This record gives sequence, structure tokens and C-alpha cells, in this order.
Amino acid sequence: MKTFPEQPSSDAPGTAPHVDPQAVAALPGSRKVYVAGSRADIRVPMREIAQARTGEEVNPPLCVYDTSGPYTDPEARIDIRRGLPPLRAAWIAERADTETLDAPSSAYGRQRAADTHLRSLRLALQRPPRRARAGHNVTQMHHARRGLVTPEMEFIAIRENQRMERFAEALRRQHPGEGFGARMPREITPELVREEVARGRAIIPANVNHPESEPMIIGRNFLVKINANIGNSAVSSSIAEEVEKMTWAIRWGADTVMDLSTGRHIHETREWIIRNSPVPIGTVPIYQALEKVDGKAEELTWEIFRDTLIEQAEQGVDYFTIHAGVRLPFIPLTARRLTGIVSRGGSIMAKWCLSHHRESFLYTHFEEICAIMRAYDVAFSLGDGLRPGSIHDANDEAQFAELKTLGELTQVAWKHDVQAMIEGPGHVPMHLIRENMDLQLEHCHGAPFYTLGPLTTDIAPGYDHITSAIGAAMIGWYGTAMLCYVTPKEHLGLPNKKDVKDGIIAYRIAAHAADLAKGHPGAQLRDNVLSKARFEFRWEDQFNLGLDPDTAREFHDETLPKEGHKLAHFCSMCGPHFCSMKITQDVRDYAAAHGIGDEATALRSGMAEKAREFVESGGEIYRRE
Amino acid sequence: MKTFPEQPSSDAPGTAPHVDPQAVAALPGSRKVYVAGSRADIRVPMREIAQARTGEEVNPPLCVYDTSGPYTDPEARIDIRRGLPPLRAAWIAERADTETLDAPSSAYGRQRAADTHLRSLRLALQRPPRRARAGHNVTQMHHARRGLVTPEMEFIAIRENQRMERFAEALRRQHPGEGFGARMPREITPELVREEVARGRAIIPANVNHPESEPMIIGRNFLVKINANIGNSAVSSSIAEEVEKMTWAIRWGADTVMDLSTGRHIHETREWIIRNSPVPIGTVPIYQALEKVDGKAEELTWEIFRDTLIEQAEQGVDYFTIHAGVRLPFIPLTARRLTGIVSRGGSIMAKWCLSHHRESFLYTHFEEICAIMRAYDVAFSLGDGLRPGSIHDANDEAQFAELKTLGELTQVAWKHDVQAMIEGPGHVPMHLIRENMDLQLEHCHGAPFYTLGPLTTDIAPGYDHITSAIGAAMIGWYGTAMLCYVTPKEHLGLPNKKDVKDGIIAYRIAAHAADLAKGHPGAQLRDNVLSKARFEFRWEDQFNLGLDPDTAREFHDETLPKEGHKLAHFCSMCGPHFCSMKITQDVRDYAAAHGIGDEATALRSGMAEKAREFVESGGEIYRRE
Repeated sequence: MKTFPEQPSSDAPGTAPHVDPQAVAALPGSRKVYVAGSRADIRVPMREIAQARTGEEVNPPLCVYDTSGPYTDPEARIDIRRGLPPLRAAWIAERADTETLDAPSSAYGRQRAADTHLRSLRLALQRPPRRARAGHNVTQMHHARRGLVTPEMEFIAIRENQRMERFAEALRRQHPGEGFGARMPREITPELVREEVARGRAIIPANVNHPESEPMIIGRNFLVKINANIGNSAVSSSIAEEVEKMTWAIRWGADTVMDLSTGRHIHETREWIIRNSPVPIGTVPIYQALEKVDGKAEELTWEIFRDTLIEQAEQGVDYFTIHAGVRLPFIPLTARRLTGIVSRGGSIMAKWCLSHHRESFLYTHFEEICAIMRAYDVAFSLGDGLRPGSIHDANDEAQFAELKTLGELTQVAWKHDVQAMIEGPGHVPMHLIRENMDLQLEHCHGAPFYTLGPLTTDIAPGYDHITSAIGAAMIGWYGTAMLCYVTPKEHLGLPNKKDVKDGIIAYRIAAHAADLAKGHPGAQLRDNVLSKARFEFRWEDQFNLGLDPDTAREFHDETLPKEGHKLAHFCSMCGPHFCSMKITQDVRDYAAAHGIGDEATALRSGMAEKAREFVESGGEIYRRE
Repeated sequence: MKTFPEQPSSDAPGTAPHVDPQAVAALPGSRKVYVAGSRADIRVPMREIAQARTGEEVNPPLCVYDTSGPYTDPEARIDIRRGLPPLRAAWIAERADTETLDAPSSAYGRQRAADTHLRSLRLALQRPPRRARAGHNVTQMHHARRGLVTPEMEFIAIRENQRMERFAEALRRQHPGEGFGARMPREITPELVREEVARGRAIIPANVNHPESEPMIIGRNFLVKINANIGNSAVSSSIAEEVEKMTWAIRWGADTVMDLSTGRHIHETREWIIRNSPVPIGTVPIYQALEKVDGKAEELTWEIFRDTLIEQAEQGVDYFTIHAGVRLPFIPLTARRLTGIVSRGGSIMAKWCLSHHRESFLYTHFEEICAIMRAYDVAFSLGDGLRPGSIHDANDEAQFAELKTLGELTQVAWKHDVQAMIEGPGHVPMHLIRENMDLQLEHCHGAPFYTLGPLTTDIAPGYDHITSAIGAAMIGWYGTAMLCYVTPKEHLGLPNKKDVKDGIIAYRIAAHAADLAKGHPGAQLRDNVLSKARFEFRWEDQFNLGLDPDTAREFHDETLPKEGHKLAHFCSMCGPHFCSMKITQDVRDYAAAHGIGDEATALRSGMAEKAREFVESGGEIYRRE
């Protein structure tokens, strides 16, 4: 039974956060299942999609990766004012390497907590922050390197496998892929997860202060993931809208969500999002730091930034984008670019560096940042502040100078057992994409790559989810571990819910196309199952097995609205007397009935008589079963 | 001045064909220009997009390829009941190799002409058909091989160049591409066009009975083209709707249109479409032939098919899809497929072959088909009747057996100086796309490849314009000459106008991304110009230079609706105090003002003082000019 939130208190500005009814509606033909791990509290959620029979033949249900969290579990109690159940709390506690603090240790966190004007913006839940005990390192990488398989790692192994073992036959019916050196065993074991994390080839973004998150992994040798950006700005948007965008984003498949808010109440918005998010949350802390100095980049200091890191780490942010590769000497390399520095974080740091004529404090204080990251297990997303903002600027000296620096910083992070992934471009024409991946692998020692698109042309404002899905699919194939979505509003405005969904579906397509091309074990299963349903005119199954059942059904109904048509053995494109799928079935039935099999030679012998039989037996194209 | 059609006669079934007001509206910021050729009647239309100044700097207007025909020329008289002006009529006549017939020479054409019940479905224009004079071959390939540069070829050369010569500096600012052996000279000359057509590496679909068409070329060494499919079915759609889809499709960039109608009044629908189309029209004649035998594939005969070819050739169809590669011995190769034969034409022919246990009449009569094609200059689009309909079936034996046959047939066509392109798949995972292109080049001797997508995954019904744009962009890069669009309704229903536009924009993106990656000379110009406008906050220019100005403007206005905001030096994503583009401009201004140039070393020397200056001078982020 679902519990909807209490009425918003009347002094809340704008609409109070609430559960979006669209986010908790049942997914058609689907149910939530949990796969048990080695202990009672490891229960890995999946979405099981039921299928109709084909005559006598049973079509088994298909399990698919499920990012939607408890929202799509009709048994779950959702109270958005209290947040999701802290499923990892016991795992974190039993490692006994963290302690609970009495109060936030950041100055800003304490100030906000003490501000009574903010009361109406707060959740009903107030959980004190956790931090590593003195002398302890609490990162998943640290555990992995010490040989510990955490419950998070086991959870991930089960999750990545998606119960593939039940489809042994179907798994054989898959094209061998081209993995460009990726390592993709048929079964993901907890030990493999541990090993990949220990080597730095994968990260598990899992802040000890985000116990609500369902563990997931980002690495080249796992399923390709996608990130959705949300966040308000000074111009638009409220807390309620952002929480709604988050629940909407995970419903459609966002593996992580970045909160890029730059407007008022950043701290409070983030609290609502994290407490209610079953997926890791990333941020760009420099955005909030800049708010603290009223938007004056040159007034930023290491102290303000440091306090912001701690503030956010204690709220539970799972990964931080840190633009520590925007070094002073690289900035003039952008002067002849067509579109200069387009990363917000990159341009802030560029302005700071020029104003002070000093090396970036993110770079000079990088080891201190690592010390904060390891105390909460926040992962680095090393930002590409100098990424190209146009086709013209792709793959230039500035971009690759920064990439090399990100590789150096990765090794510093690893020295501290801090997890790290590397951000990538941007705008890149197709033929220059591969170089990005190759250089990232070379300079960054196998750390996961996390790219924004790339957009493969600049000429389609309003359609950059498509210009970039092309590049994202390709770079995912080449080895990128996570693809940051781009919405149709890119360059034009802030995405609304429709844009968020459009961006996510485009990126789910790109990620899956990449898994297929890499030959990820089992990746083709969903294609095979859906295509079988399509071929057999199981319309409802075709809709439900797709990435967006609602849209598929709606499109079908525009042409053939009647319920009966969903049982029809024809499709709207060709009409009832003229269907290639049906003709093919006749060809196959015929071949089978007459023992033709699939040898061309068999067909040639004695076929004249068989052809006559075929005609005599009717050979009807349209027939109902 | 525009002339709108007379009122429809009251006995017309459904809505009478009419000019869609949306198709003749002015494109924002644009005007129609004509570039003159060597003779007065060669006037090549282009769309010129105006740009605002940047301070004192003049941003010259950009010419882009324009498929929209006279509809977007405010000077043109459009009377859809009389068709477009026959701009090629004089060129065809002066070659003196055709004669005007008194009446259609197909039995079906004569029958329809005599049927008084159809009067209300006819255009006001009735032009008698043309055909090659005895002993003549009227194809562009024949002319090319005899060394003749036709006006069509000159028209195409001017059209392909897009007045690039005016942007010599910009042309240098382009990434060298990876053309995989494509030949892309900086300037397209009429002689080059002739040579490519003579060698069979490019085709000019230009039926002598379609004098209204503006010449265009399909070949690997030219700009990548796209095709849009329209057509009614037994279930839905009227003549008026199909004409409207055609004018809508060319407005957004369809280079050719295929009329895939299968319902009533195929003949009359086609007449309206051809007479009003400035782009080449393709058809699949077997669809109509099947209608003539009431949908019973086994009752098809060579004679019925032959009559259909002549009927359509005399109406002016520019290319025919002919599934002559679906040979009897290949059919059983499909029996173990997951989705069998998904091509309609392919499945019709498979059924015919099995019913009669005979080799396909398309294959056995291929030379006779060539004789018809050369009498009107209809080009072959050799159909891939055995293309894969699912990822599972990609690149299988059936598909490649057919491809090889298409290569043999290409050589037969070339023996008759008949132009030919080759159709390709379908559903193919990314890593298997390249093999399709490589084998096509190998087996088909350089004839242009024309692919449907390919779709890179099966799991996104409702979004197959995206699953396929990924594959289309890649195969376009590898060398495909024309990309057949896929709309969001693929597999689900018939596309409406919105779907047609969505499909076209996705494919314009794919084609352009391919041109960029190949390094097509000048391809990057539009990206550079648009990105410059974007960087300089010339919002209106950014909209107008994009593929879809209407959507870009609408998206921008959702967040920042006020007119003044289109002059704003910030964008909605970041708000007025926080814009990376603006910060970058500051960095650049600073670098320029202080003579830093782009040498990193220059920055390092004496920067402390300069940094102080920068702060003192204000360093304001947000400033209006």
C-alpha cells in the first residue's frame, strides 16, 4: 500500500515535494521481483515482464535491469517526506569503520540546520551524518583492495546478471561482439566485481551517507550505464519539480542522477533528492561554492570549496565532479577555439586562475580532496572542464592536455583508494570519437570513462538527444562505461519531464546498442524476445518488452485503436491482406511441414509437387488462430 | 504570389488535394535564391539564411541545400491541380531521343484514363507520356558514357557545391575526415558528375516523364541523401494526406520520396504526388501488381508486372524497387530466422516462388525490365527482400546471398546503361554494420548503397527513428549514398505528419554527421557558422541555422518566453550571472587585450600583474552590448 505525503505546510514556497503519481504507476505487464543473495538483507530488485503464450508454447517472463527503486513496488510504503528505507544502513554499520556525528561538520551544514526559516523546506527525517572513524578508509575500493567482498558487490553481481542463467539457449543465439579489449565473462561473480573495483576499472558510487541507494557499478566490463541531469537554476524550477524529475528519470532508466542545481535552496533541494533516490546522486560542488560567493568566481577560496565538499558529502552525494584538470597553463590553449570553454565548472576555474594568476586550487589541494572523499566514500568524476563545445573544437590540444592531467590525478586518487571516473566530451564528429576513447584508456589507466554524448554535429538545436545518441552509442561500444544524457532542450532551455524522458530513452537505446556491439553476454536477449513477440503479433508483449510501453501502445492505437486489433495477425502498415510477417510464417510452416529444413538443396529436389500441394492446401495469408 | 487551388469538386472522395499552408510558409530568416548555370534555364535553387552582425563584424548569409522546391518561393505560382512547372521539359525535348505518345502504352494506364468514375480524382493537367524513340537509350548513364554533360549534371554540380567558394577561410577550418576511400574533391564539376554517373558510382533519378524534378544525385562521393517513405494503405489515409506528407517531407529535407501506397487509387495518388514533386519519386511496383491480383501473390505474372512497370514509368516514377535478388534457392535460408522475411516485396516474391516452384520472374525477366527502364530513364533500386528484420537475423547467409545476386544484376543493368543503386538493411548491431558496407562495395562494384537505417537494436518500439539514426549515421560514414528514413511509428503504425518530420530530422542529422566524418568538403561550414552564432548569443541566428528553426525557437521560449531574452547574453540553463560562454569570452578578450595569444609560455610570464589588471578592469560576467 502506498502512503502519500501529508499536506504541504502552508509556508512552503512553491509546491511542496510530493510523490508524482506517474512515477508510482505500475509498469504494464510487469511486476517487481527480488532476487535473494547470500544473506537475508540482500534482495536485488528486478522488473519481470510477463509474456503471453504462442499457441502451446510458453514464453517465459523476462527480467530486466530496474532502476526505478521502491516506487514501482506496490508493496512499498512511499513517504517522500521521510525518504526511502536505508537498505544499506546495516552493511555500513557492521563494517564498523564509520562513526555517527552529532551534527554536520561543515560550517554551511550547521548554518542551514540552525536556520529556522528553512524549517518548511525540510524533510520529516533528520539523520545525523556518518564519517570514517579516525584512521579508517571507507571506500569500496579500499575494501576491494583488502580482499573484502562487500554486500554491495554481491548485490551488484546479482543485478548485472539479470537472471540470465534461465535463458541458456537464448544466450547462445547472440552475435559475438567486438569488445575492443573489454573483459566480459558470461557470469558476473561478486569476486569479479571486487577485482574490477580494486583495479580501478569500475566504481561503485555509494556514499556512507546515502544508505537508500541500491548498489550499482560503472565500468567498461559491465553493462553500459546512463546518467540523467536534473537541477533548477536561478531562472526556473522548484524543489518539488526536481524531486519529480528524479523519480521520473529513474522510472525510465537513469542509472545515476546528477543534481546540477544552481538556484536558491541548493542544499535543501539536494536533501530531498538524496533521501528519496535509490540511484547514486552526483553533483558539481563548485556550482554551490560559487553561489556562496554571489557568483564571483575570483572570490572562490579553497576553504569555501572544502566546506562545500564536506557539506555535500555528509548529505550523501555519491560522486563529485571536480574540474581539477583545468590547469592554468591550459587555459590560453582555448583562446583560438570557436566556442572557448563551455563547461560551467571549467569556465569558473579558468576565470579564477586568470584572476589570481595562480594554479587551480582544485589541483593544488587535490590530495586534501582525496582525504575528504575517502572519509565518506564519495567517488571522483574528474571533470572535463576543457571539453569541446563545438565540432570545430573537438580533439584539440587543450582537451587532451586536460585528459592527460586527469590521468595523473586518477593515480593520486587511487593512492588514497578513492574511486574515480573520467569525464569526456562533448561535441565530436564521428570519426574523431575513437581517439577520445583510446587516449582515455591510455592516459587514465583503465578508469571508467563517462562522456556527455558526444554530439556528432552542431546543426540540430532541439534534437541534440539524437545528435548525441549517435556519438554515445559509438563511444559506449568503444568502451565508455557511463553515458551522460543530453535532452532535446540542450543549448535552448531547461528540460521538463517530457525532455527528461526523451533524453533517457535515447540514451537507453545508445547504451543498449553499445552492449550489443560489445557482445555483452545476454545483451541480445531482450532484442530476441521482443522480436519474437513482434513476429508473432503479440502486440501487448511487444509494447511491454520495449523501453517505453506507453508510447508504443499510444502509437499503435493512433492507427488501429480497437482492442481487437491488438490480437490481429497483421499490422497497420500493410493491412489485413498483405503482411510480410504472415507470409514468412507461411513459408516457414511450409518448409517445416515438407521437411525442407534449411538446406537449399532439399528445396530444389522434388519441389514442383510440393509447390502444388502448397497452393492446394490454401496458402492463405490471413488467418486467425 | 501564390495561387491556391480551386475548390474541390463535390464528388471527390475524402478531402481533395490542396496546398498545405504549412508547406508554403516562409522559412524563418531565409530567402530562396537561384544560382545561374551556363544557360538561362539552369537556375539552381538554394536557401539562403541571413545572419545578424557581431558588433561591427558582418556574418555572411549561409546557403544550404534546399529540397523544398517552388513551395518555399514566394514568387512561385503553386496550383496543385496543375502540378509544378516542368523545368526539365526543354532539356528532355532538345535531346531529341524521346517521342510523345498519344496515350499510355500500358493496358492499365489506358483503362484508368478511360474510367469516367475517376474523373474527380484527376488533376487539371493531362500530359501525354514520353518514351525513348526506337533504338534510343535515354538514361543519364547512357548520356554520361557517351561523354555528354547534360543540363541535369550541371545543375547537380552547382547544387552540390552550395556556393562554398564564398567561404574559403571557413573551409580550411574543418577536420580532415576519414572517407574510407571515398573521392571528395573540393569542387564538384559537371564533368565529375558525368564521370561518376558513367562509372555507375552515382545515379541521377530523372524519368523523362517527371520533368518537374530538380536534378539531384545519389552517390558515395556526393553529399549523403535521405529518402522519406509515404503512402496510404488499405487501412488508412487519403490522396490529400499523401500529397501533404510529400510537401511536408521535402520542406524538412527529404531528397527523394518513395510512394509506398498499397490501398485504393494507387494510380491516381501517384499522379498527384509526381506532378507536384520537385524531388525524385520512387515506388515498389510489385505492391500495385499485387493489388491487381487481389492480394494473391501466387497469381502474379510477368505480364501483369510488366504492364505495371510501364504504367508507372509513363507517370514519371524516377526509381523502382525491384526485388529481383529474392531467388528461389535463397528462400529456405530464411527458415531458421527469428523474423523470417520482413520485406513486403521480398515476402511476396518468396510466396510466388514457393507456390510455383519456379525461379522469380523478376530474376528471369531482368533484361526485359532493363529494356523498360532505359526507355524512360527509370533507375533501379535493387531491393533487399531478404534484409534482416531483427538483430538476431543480421548479416546471415540469406542476406548476403541476395546481396551478391544484386551485384550480378547491377552488371546486367549497366550493360543496358541503366542506372542502379542497391538497397541494404534493416536491423544490424553496430559492430556488424561495417561488413554490410564492405561487402556491398565488393559485390556491387561501387554502385550506390541505399540503406534502411539500419536499426541498431530492436528494443525501442516508438523510437526507431533513433535506434536507426545511429546505424544510418555510421553506414553513411562508411560509404552509403542514401539513407531511407525510419519514423517513430516504425513497427507500430502509419506515420502522420509529425512522424514524417521527426524521421526526416533524425535522418538529416545522420546524413550530416556522416558528411562530417567523411570529411566532405564544406560539410563543417554549417556547424561552424551555427556554433559561432551560439557562442555569440545570436539566438535567432542559432534557431534559423538549425535543421528545425520552429522547434528550436519553441523550446527556447518555453523557458525564456520574452522577446528580450533572445537578445540576452546568457542562456536559460545557467541564468544571467553564470554563463560559461560569457566567461570564456572574458578569457579570450583578456588574452587578446594582453597579447597572450595562444602560447602557454606567454601566459606564464608576467601574469601576476595582468591578473591584477583583469580584476581591476571589472571582469564582469554579464554585460550587454
